[in-house]
Amino acid sequence: MPARTVYLDHSASTPTDPRVVEAMLPYFSDIYGNASSSHSFGRKAESAIERARETVARILCCKPSEIVFTSGGSESDNLAIRGVAWSLRQSVGKRHLITAPTEHEAVGRTVRQLGEVMEFSYTMMPVDRFGMCDPAEFESVCRDETSFVSIMYANNEVGTIQPIAELAAIARQRGILFHTDAVQAAGQLPLDVRALDVDMMSLSAHKFYGPKGIGVLYIRDGIELESSQTGGSHENGRRAGTHNTPLIVGLAKALEIAYDEYDMHVAHYKMMRDLLIDGVLSSVPTAQLSGHPDNRLPSHASFVIEGIDSGMILMHLDVNGVAASGGSACKTGNPEPSKVLLAMGYSEREAIGGLRFTVGRQTTAEDIEYAVDVLAKAVEKLYRLQTV
Amino acid sequence: MPARTVYLDHSASTPTDPRVVEAMLPYFSDIYGNASSSHSFGRKAESAIERARETVARILCCKPSEIVFTSGGSESDNLAIRGVAWSLRQSVGKRHLITAPTEHEAVGRTVRQLGEVMEFSYTMMPVDRFGMCDPAEFESVCRDETSFVSIMYANNEVGTIQPIAELAAIARQRGILFHTDAVQAAGQLPLDVRALDVDMMSLSAHKFYGPKGIGVLYIRDGIELESSQTGGSHENGRRAGTHNTPLIVGLAKALEIAYDEYDMHVAHYKMMRDLLIDGVLSSVPTAQLSGHPDNRLPSHASFVIEGIDSGMILMHLDVNGVAASGGSACKTGNPEPSKVLLAMGYSEREAIGGLRFTVGRQTTAEDIEYAVDVLAKAVEKLYRLQTV
Repeated sequence: MPARTVYLDHSASTPTDPRVVEAMLPYFSDIYGNASSSHSFGRKAESAIERARETVARILCCKPSEIVFTSGGSESDNLAIRGVAWSLRQSVGKRHLITAPTEHEAVGRTVRQLGEVMEFSYTMMPVDRFGMCDPAEFESVCRDETSFVSIMYANNEVGTIQPIAELAAIARQRGILFHTDAVQAAGQLPLDVRALDVDMMSLSAHKFYGPKGIGVLYIRDGIELESSQTGGSHENGRRAGTHNTPLIVGLAKALEIAYDEYDMHVAHYKMMRDLLIDGVLSSVPTAQLSGHPDNRLPSHASFVIEGIDSGMILMHLDVNGVAASGGSACKTGNPEPSKVLLAMGYSEREAIGGLRFTVGRQTTAEDIEYAVDVLAKAVEKLYRLQTV
Repeated sequence: MPARTVYLDHSASTPTDPRVVEAMLPYFSDIYGNASSSHSFGRKAESAIERARETVARILCCKPSEIVFTSGGSESDNLAIRGVAWSLRQSVGKRHLITAPTEHEAVGRTVRQLGEVMEFSYTMMPVDRFGMCDPAEFESVCRDETSFVSIMYANNEVGTIQPIAELAAIARQRGILFHTDAVQAAGQLPLDVRALDVDMMSLSAHKFYGPKGIGVLYIRDGIELESSQTGGSHENGRRAGTHNTPLIVGLAKALEIAYDEYDMHVAHYKMMRDLLIDGVLSSVPTAQLSGHPDNRLPSHASFVIEGIDSGMILMHLDVNGVAASGGSACKTGNPEPSKVLLAMGYSEREAIGGLRFTVGRQTTAEDIEYAVDVLAKAVEKLYRLQTV
């Protein structure tokens, strides 16, 4: 048994806030009607969903009708991309998409599938050493036949925050629809879609202390999209499938808590994150901070430790009770270099040593101290083993 | 306030069994790791998911690796259809699909979208007066370029059970993949995929006293499909998105209960259903039973009441505390004739009067008596109003 258990992988998933569980509970066995049913059992479910939709819309500064509930961040990304890509191919014949190599696979793989299987074309826009997209670079890859661009609000692997409003303004000028994956940003950055000026935005509840399996896609009024999940006319024909009443209620409750208590949590995240960054940089001589030094998520500390497979480090951490990750939630033991780090210009030798620590509401200074100590010892040991 | 509240819309949704809620609870706030994470928090979630997968596989008589967890019945249907359609178009150039006009929209609309937007072709196979597909008819619409057929196990609107094994055998002979939407059948009919001889089968937990927002797609070993929801390599690359640990655990628990207690529940459903059918046919002179008189779901009683908009009847039932539906869960107040009934050969005048009552575990003989009485009075009143 390790001396301590320290969860520093909040970007992979957060525990559901007990207040959220409490809010969901009545909707499993008591208020169980199908929200599409016209009888009183259905109407009770429907009104809970519409209240949840209003809560989400208030926090995103949009209309309730612009909120679509999905089964999570991946589905939201899929619906935005595939929905617009097919719709604009149908209506105006545009077939070109733009994204970046540092996006989550829910974006990257969806764009590649459209390109490889469904006769679309796409451009992967380069990023700089910090993982940032340059607006001038973006402008240069836009084409007349570009229908859609997807750039994430904040990166899951290296925490870098993109200049979304600037990029979105360029897209708007060029008549290109702009989607942002805000899955990592939610609960840590403002989600005002008017200020960001985005056309579509994805959220996932389990990243902000809500339940897994429920997400949001904000879709600006007037945007037509081809449904990605087809069937009944739920969500105004934009997303088929019986409404998940308890989880929708839970998502709204979690988002409300995250923004009601925003200042407190964000201040705590930053304090813990900075402790962690300072601790790692001072006790692991070969560690470099990856991602942007300032424009980064409040909870997010990521590093590159040259020449050591991060899988080995993670195993040492895990044995000692520290949960961290090698980038996005992944389970490979084999030293695959991180595609995100490679795209940012790191060498293969560096890109196998990517580590991500993400703090949370319950993280304490003692947790950080313990984790830094375990990391420093693990790295030292692994270097020693290599030179034997 | 009505004298009694009677829920007879279990085909729309069932309450989550309290034993299922109890099984799910630890996975919200305690065992909250992302099942794709390699640390101990992730492994605990993963092992709960793999136990759930084994439970489902045992009941479906297949291998755990043949089970894919989705966000529900609609997604399962979408993944089966779109996944195979695109995959076989890529690999062998086949572009023709077959289904029936009586399918749920998660099948029907998905096939139509492939036809209208994505350059596939399809055939809607006719059904008889009971909603049954004739195997000889099926054989006659198969083409060399047919890749895929989807025929539901039991109909949601009229309860008719299809001769799945017979249809599947024909498909196999012709090299066509066979999918069945078993969403309504689960908990009421055997789900042995070897006996049914199907290649793919969809389930949705909230139809068998599990939670909403979680489903299964059985995919026979060796079937290649193009992911419908793309992103990470979850579910062996077949369905991207963070695993919904609590709901997956809940689905397995609900399925286990449904089949452990199968005989008891099915006997109860049949008794209640037959009471209801006898009561309605004897007290509403213009009511006809719709769907097959014998080959029908144990819980399912459906009727056609000529010349009265079922929306009006449902409103009267609702005011008196009785929850039923006009077919699938729908909320139109306008008298749209049921497409299912029209496809079965009913006239428009008949097809606006389709009613569905579906009994459940808690339904009592008193509930049935009360509902029949309310229905008889409502119908009488509505006829009277029409003749004034």
